[in-house]
Amino acid sequence: MRPSGRKLVELRPISIETGVIAHAEGSCLIRVGGTHVLCTASVEEKPPPFLRGTGQGWVTAEYGMLPRATHSRNRREAAAGKQSGRTQEIQRLIGRSLRAGVDRLALGERQIVVDCDVIQADGGTRCAAITGGWVALRLAVNRLLSARLLTSDPIMDHVAAVSCGIYAGQPVVDLDYAEDSEAGTDGNFVLTGAGRLVEVQMSAEGAAFSRSEMDALLDLAQAGAADLVAAQKAAVA
Amino acid sequence: MRPSGRKLVELRPISIETGVIAHAEGSCLIRVGGTHVLCTASVEEKPPPFLRGTGQGWVTAEYGMLPRATHSRNRREAAAGKQSGRTQEIQRLIGRSLRAGVDRLALGERQIVVDCDVIQADGGTRCAAITGGWVALRLAVNRLLSARLLTSDPIMDHVAAVSCGIYAGQPVVDLDYAEDSEAGTDGNFVLTGAGRLVEVQMSAEGAAFSRSEMDALLDLAQAGAADLVAAQKAAVA
Amino acid sequence: MRPSGRKLVELRPISIETGVIAHAEGSCLIRVGGTHVLCTASVEEKPPPFLRGTGQGWVTAEYGMLPRATHSRNRREAAAGKQSGRTQEIQRLIGRSLRAGVDRLALGERQIVVDCDVIQADGGTRCAAITGGWVALRLAVNRLLSARLLTSDPIMDHVAAVSCGIYAGQPVVDLDYAEDSEAGTDGNFVLTGAGRLVEVQMSAEGAAFSRSEMDALLDLAQAGAADLVAAQKAAVA
Amino acid sequence: MRPSGRKLVELRPISIETGVIAHAEGSCLIRVGGTHVLCTASVEEKPPPFLRGTGQGWVTAEYGMLPRATHSRNRREAAAGKQSGRTQEIQRLIGRSLRAGVDRLALGERQIVVDCDVIQADGGTRCAAITGGWVALRLAVNRLLSARLLTSDPIMDHVAAVSCGIYAGQPVVDLDYAEDSEAGTDGNFVLTGAGRLVEVQMSAEGAAFSRSEMDALLDLAQAGAADLVAAQKAAVA
Amino acid sequence: MRPSGRKLVELRPISIETGVIAHAEGSCLIRVGGTHVLCTASVEEKPPPFLRGTGQGWVTAEYGMLPRATHSRNRREAAAGKQSGRTQEIQRLIGRSLRAGVDRLALGERQIVVDCDVIQADGGTRCAAITGGWVALRLAVNRLLSARLLTSDPIMDHVAAVSCGIYAGQPVVDLDYAEDSEAGTDGNFVLTGAGRLVEVQMSAEGAAFSRSEMDALLDLAQAGAADLVAAQKAAVA
Amino acid sequence: MRPSGRKLVELRPISIETGVIAHAEGSCLIRVGGTHVLCTASVEEKPPPFLRGTGQGWVTAEYGMLPRATHSRNRREAAAGKQSGRTQEIQRLIGRSLRAGVDRLALGERQIVVDCDVIQADGGTRCAAITGGWVALRLAVNRLLSARLLTSDPIMDHVAAVSCGIYAGQPVVDLDYAEDSEAGTDGNFVLTGAGRLVEVQMSAEGAAFSRSEMDALLDLAQAGAADLVAAQKAAVA
Repeated sequence: MRPSGRKLVELRPISIETGVIAHAEGSCLIRVGGTHVLCTASVEEKPPPFLRGTGQGWVTAEYGMLPRATHSRNRREAAAGKQSGRTQEIQRLIGRSLRAGVDRLALGERQIVVDCDVIQADGGTRCAAITGGWVALRLAVNRLLSARLLTSDPIMDHVAAVSCGIYAGQPVVDLDYAEDSEAGTDGNFVLTGAGRLVEVQMSAEGAAFSRSEMDALLDLAQAGAADLVAAQKAAVA
Repeated sequence: MRPSGRKLVELRPISIETGVIAHAEGSCLIRVGGTHVLCTASVEEKPPPFLRGTGQGWVTAEYGMLPRATHSRNRREAAAGKQSGRTQEIQRLIGRSLRAGVDRLALGERQIVVDCDVIQADGGTRCAAITGGWVALRLAVNRLLSARLLTSDPIMDHVAAVSCGIYAGQPVVDLDYAEDSEAGTDGNFVLTGAGRLVEVQMSAEGAAFSRSEMDALLDLAQAGAADLVAAQKAAVA
Repeated sequence: MRPSGRKLVELRPISIETGVIAHAEGSCLIRVGGTHVLCTASVEEKPPPFLRGTGQGWVTAEYGMLPRATHSRNRREAAAGKQSGRTQEIQRLIGRSLRAGVDRLALGERQIVVDCDVIQADGGTRCAAITGGWVALRLAVNRLLSARLLTSDPIMDHVAAVSCGIYAGQPVVDLDYAEDSEAGTDGNFVLTGAGRLVEVQMSAEGAAFSRSEMDALLDLAQAGAADLVAAQKAAVA
Repeated sequence: MRPSGRKLVELRPISIETGVIAHAEGSCLIRVGGTHVLCTASVEEKPPPFLRGTGQGWVTAEYGMLPRATHSRNRREAAAGKQSGRTQEIQRLIGRSLRAGVDRLALGERQIVVDCDVIQADGGTRCAAITGGWVALRLAVNRLLSARLLTSDPIMDHVAAVSCGIYAGQPVVDLDYAEDSEAGTDGNFVLTGAGRLVEVQMSAEGAAFSRSEMDALLDLAQAGAADLVAAQKAAVA
Repeated sequence: MRPSGRKLVELRPISIETGVIAHAEGSCLIRVGGTHVLCTASVEEKPPPFLRGTGQGWVTAEYGMLPRATHSRNRREAAAGKQSGRTQEIQRLIGRSLRAGVDRLALGERQIVVDCDVIQADGGTRCAAITGGWVALRLAVNRLLSARLLTSDPIMDHVAAVSCGIYAGQPVVDLDYAEDSEAGTDGNFVLTGAGRLVEVQMSAEGAAFSRSEMDALLDLAQAGAADLVAAQKAAVA
Repeated sequence: MRPSGRKLVELRPISIETGVIAHAEGSCLIRVGGTHVLCTASVEEKPPPFLRGTGQGWVTAEYGMLPRATHSRNRREAAAGKQSGRTQEIQRLIGRSLRAGVDRLALGERQIVVDCDVIQADGGTRCAAITGGWVALRLAVNRLLSARLLTSDPIMDHVAAVSCGIYAGQPVVDLDYAEDSEAGTDGNFVLTGAGRLVEVQMSAEGAAFSRSEMDALLDLAQAGAADLVAAQKAAVA
């Protein structure tokens, strides 16, 4: 029933290649089906101004999409002179999600900036960005630990994200572009390695959805996130 | 336990005064406790460019906050030269929420712009904006029906919004600023008059939340929205 | 002869409601006929950079208009990404006018920002903003005096503003929108409680005006300002 | 008493050199003492969009100042990314002033853009821009008349501008920078060749001024403008 | 003598991987040593406005660099709100260079946009962008030829670019970052497959260079470009 | 053969008038045929932030063109809200060129900003800006030497610029607008008084050019620059 022939509960193939950018403290190229996102984590030994003197650090994220990542070319945001509302919404979500897995006191007064740039898009780019962004963050923190710039690990748990929606009347996981552009209701779920919820963003531009549909989507999200966390573990092993 | 002395399930007092702006096709001033939002609906007899020739109409929203709506003065966005990411995220949410209650084909090729400007803020401004914005929209559509510019009612159901969160370890509804600034987890729920879900946006910057906490918040949201819908009905009667 | 039936020398009904915004040190909602402006005064205990170390304070103003304050909706300036030339011109005028009534040395090294936001417009918005802005400023200074943050009153006199113009060949005071859009010559006069002049801005896009017409308009302005000052006195009593 | 040794009623030396820019339909370099402004008038055979089909034309103005026209270098507005409020206020004034001397129906559906760029500044730049801008406009219209693109002259009268103020307690005309930076009250007067008023902009940041001071300044302005009109006549003869 | 141990006339290893972005009409990832640039060519079946009705097409380019392509993170241009002068200069150079190899009449009224995004930078990014951009362009034109949207080949010759400079007193080719940051004089040469010159951009911030040094650099550039053209031929074979 | 009747190797008449702006430390108006550029040099006794504490100074440049310097009016960059790519490219070139003739250690920790504003354009504006800009810089440095703010002369040599191109198949020097708009290949050469090269920027949007054409253009540039340096010497004598 799904355009790709996948089962309702089946994720697309995932690959996470690490260490792809020589200069970055942490980096990976995550591929979730046809969605490819390049993630880097950059350590800055200075916190943002609002945290100076608090002993706490910060993790933030930026998101971008290359102009021809999509079926037809989009205008380059740097040329347009601003980031769209969609871009800002996504990068705020990535930042909040990653921070939820970090003990900012243990991180100390530094900042880690996670850049997620979509090279090729086929639906679910923000979820891939969170899942891959966490890997880049993990690798950058590993380097701080190896260099003894950190004495205890500020990362408390995995953070991974998956989309779910109602497609053709059925709850499905990890929508690709063909499904995403047809689904009346869809959303994104961010979860921890322990299966707890970090972010839930469900949206119905078409028909509103019922409480039982919400429950079905939460079930799918919890199962899907577990698979993503396993892929993260393999990547950073 | 709550700073205001309210019960966990108790909303703040609500008042909705209609017809407050002479020029607007629909308008109201909604007060939810200390949060006051001025909402106007403006009918434009031309749809946005991407809908020309489709027979469908559009509902969109803009959100603003006066500089001294808050405890200390904020920079005016028009002076800063751009709307913040937060503002854009909120107005996209309001627009999507209101559209979920409208049959855009029945609306015909016109656009209704709902402006929500926060005069005074005490938490929950985006929820008040959605609840009040729907009233302004309803009144503007009533005028189109009276003028026989519309022959069938494009509004399918009420749309109202309420915030819920975990405050001091307990699930509470309709957080005021004192609660909002302390809550680890909070979010916004948009529902229809029939109790179906339109938007769910839960966020945990602090500790992640469990599936059962999610369920408790959904329960609170459904009860709270019913009260708001009752207030809408009284206002437009 | 006037569309509203008013006499040539007759102002519209004025009301000034104070204390309308809980957070602001001073606030009022001024209504001059159908023109409604919300004014707040915010005290900042830090002067602008160019006054540091001089012992002097500053009063500045910002002006805005809600998108649907007017007959048809205007584009939101925050969305447009800049304040129009008209907005900047008006807020510079409000700031200069209010400063003319303040002893900046007595105010000390602090800044008071007066925000004037037009909720509903029917001509004369900048004059209402100045007249109401002075009330908000007066109330904020009263609070500084009560709190003994100021020992002597930095406000030297009332400041109020009224428009005058040549409508249908006759000099008239306090033009509403119907008159304003027809008048060839019109302008704004800012005066003190003592009847001295602070600002005169007369403009003829149509036929130039004579010295004797200028004199007649100055007479009207002086009479009108006296009524406005009386309303200010009643409001802050 | 004046820093320059001039009498209270004495203008600075004026020179107006025409035809200084080969490409422009009209141009002049006006020098009023140490204030030098380059003015060009550009004819566009298309009116602005809001006048299409009305049979009327438009005259508009833009104002700029080279970075080192002043004692110390100012930031280039093109590099800053926007025109300041002051610049916008001045160019709106120039445009309104020039339009007041033009029969826009006789001009027909075309636009004349008058650019006024300050090469060297010593006070009174906006007045020099209006006086010189009128000369450039006159020359451009002469060319349209010669080319028989116009059959009747749309220019109804001269338009010239002069500053007046209270300096060291005395009313003076044509303030230079040394006076301007000290004067409590000053302003700009735009008049026609017939001595009628087009714009009056008086401002008191310091002490408010009396009605009799206003009268004295109007007297000075009328006398000064007559001299400027004589200089314009000599230049375009 | 060179930090990398290369001979004066030796290029870094080059690889050009084609077809890396599924949606683009032409694409490649070019690696010149540690400099990696992703190039896509997007065909738009509409020419830019200034060419409508002329029968001619256009080729244009945009250039970007991911924030962490460099040793330390750079600010994202989309977040900064504008493209830097350097970025604009580079993308104008790429566009001019590629157009020099295209018969724009044979291309017909369409536009090809070549996006060059630097994934990892180690000197010579603009040269790699031109060399790789030509490959993406060639592949996109091949697709137009296969689809019979073009009947004759608009590409007249290869276009490739190489940097040359004076490093430690010696002329060297293809400078890496370590050399580039030390070289007093360096520049970029764009050549055709036939060895003719398209662009020469030599710059001496330090000591000026002699005519004979210029000749030596031109010799190096001609030899280096021949190797790059051979790599292009292998890639598109 | 040239539209102006000039010989292939003949420059246009040059005049350099110095001291034209009273406030600037150095200034000139350079006229190269119909191209007129006003150049000022402003001394700032503070270096840019990146040089603080290094003992070195900086020379930078800004370039502008008045809207009606050209045949038809161009949009004012300050009104457009940004400097074009062309403007930025030119001002970067002017700055680099002037710095190549300055010993920045001898200049000490200060900055000189050279503003080049085109009053009238007829081709070759960036070359005239460099040649005139050097004169303004020389005069400003002379003033620093006279005032004993500098003890040794930081200017090492003259810097002058000339354009060359292939017009109607022949190499020509100092192209005017009529030639420039027809030439397939053209470029700019910046040289020192000693005849060494500072910048070479050749560009072929049409047919690529040969090595021997490049040589012919370099010959023309060296001869032309010598004439310009002679004119600089006469101006600053």
